[in-house]
Amino acid sequence: MSSPATNRGAKIYLAGPDVFLPHAAELGQAKKRLCMTYGLLGLFPLDNLPDVRSAEPVDRRIYAANVEMMREADAGVFNLTPFRGPSADVGTVFELGLMIGMGKPVFGYSNTASSLRARIAGAARDSTTGAWTGADGMTVEDFENADNLMIDASLAASGHSIVRVDAGARIDRIEGFEACLNSPPPI
Amino acid sequence: MSSPATNRGAKIYLAGPDVFLPHAAELGQAKKRLCMTYGLLGLFPLDNLPDVRSAEPVDRRIYAANVEMMREADAGVFNLTPFRGPSADVGTVFELGLMIGMGKPVFGYSNTASSLRARIAGAARDSTTGAWTGADGMTVEDFENADNLMIDASLAASGHSIVRVDAGARIDRIEGFEACLNSPPPI
Repeated sequence: MSSPATNRGAKIYLAGPDVFLPHAAELGQAKKRLCMTYGLLGLFPLDNLPDVRSAEPVDRRIYAANVEMMREADAGVFNLTPFRGPSADVGTVFELGLMIGMGKPVFGYSNTASSLRARIAGAARDSTTGAWTGADGMTVEDFENADNLMIDASLAASGHSIVRVDAGARIDRIEGFEACLNSPPPI
Repeated sequence: MSSPATNRGAKIYLAGPDVFLPHAAELGQAKKRLCMTYGLLGLFPLDNLPDVRSAEPVDRRIYAANVEMMREADAGVFNLTPFRGPSADVGTVFELGLMIGMGKPVFGYSNTASSLRARIAGAARDSTTGAWTGADGMTVEDFENADNLMIDASLAASGHSIVRVDAGARIDRIEGFEACLNSPPPI
């Protein structure tokens, strides 16, 4: 992120599967406190109050509130730690795409240093063609990336590659989050 | 989509884990042929020719080419069938967010009628609190949605709920894809 001097008070959307943890509220508080030490204001999705006057179904109200929070944010920090499978949480990844589409600066971290390829069941390289496939017979990307190339490359293209931390793939570790707050300004 | 009369020649980005199938090229051809019968032009990511003069790494060239294809497209149709886990392919979901962020009409289908909740390992409801959690102790969304609420609600908000087809979760079935092409215009 930009230096605190130029960026003071910037609003940061705190995206991640953090919201699904039993201690989600505490983790959100910890992230918001850390933002404050950098002169930033963290916006945590669970702080949203979906419009109770709305006749919309609850899930659509939550969606609308999250989108509004992302519109309000100046940037986003994404927890891309694998969630219920080899890849990041799809809700988080949706939001990454959305904020890039909105033209906002994005930052991401994963609490594992492993590559996506290493996490796909039965991934093996054909010695003749050199191509990698999984146990499902489908292609495995061979880029040493943290996740699908659209994720890694989108972050690299926006000036900050995914921060990969060897932290046992625990969703709630925040060293990588702090490294994102410490990132240099976008190019 | 709008009626062919008003929408003739519209370019449709064909997003999905289709690209990872051994017969990806044939599936892309089948989708493009189907688009033609609706007066639409399908844009399939594997038809991209990443810029060979670029000094960028291959994954970043593929990313840039896909983003350019989405910018060129008038709308997107997303294959949201579960891929290597209970949820849709994260590359596809990233693109869904990106195209919504770009303000483009989006359509999606899944080749299973099951809910996300039914696909999460050990999902169970606490009889006291009523809350659902998975075997991992983390919250399971309780909306009967096809996937994470950001996916279902984003499509519903853009005027077309996910088309859910009972097709054995096979990535390569295209009834749901055709149903998307038959959708009424966005509200």
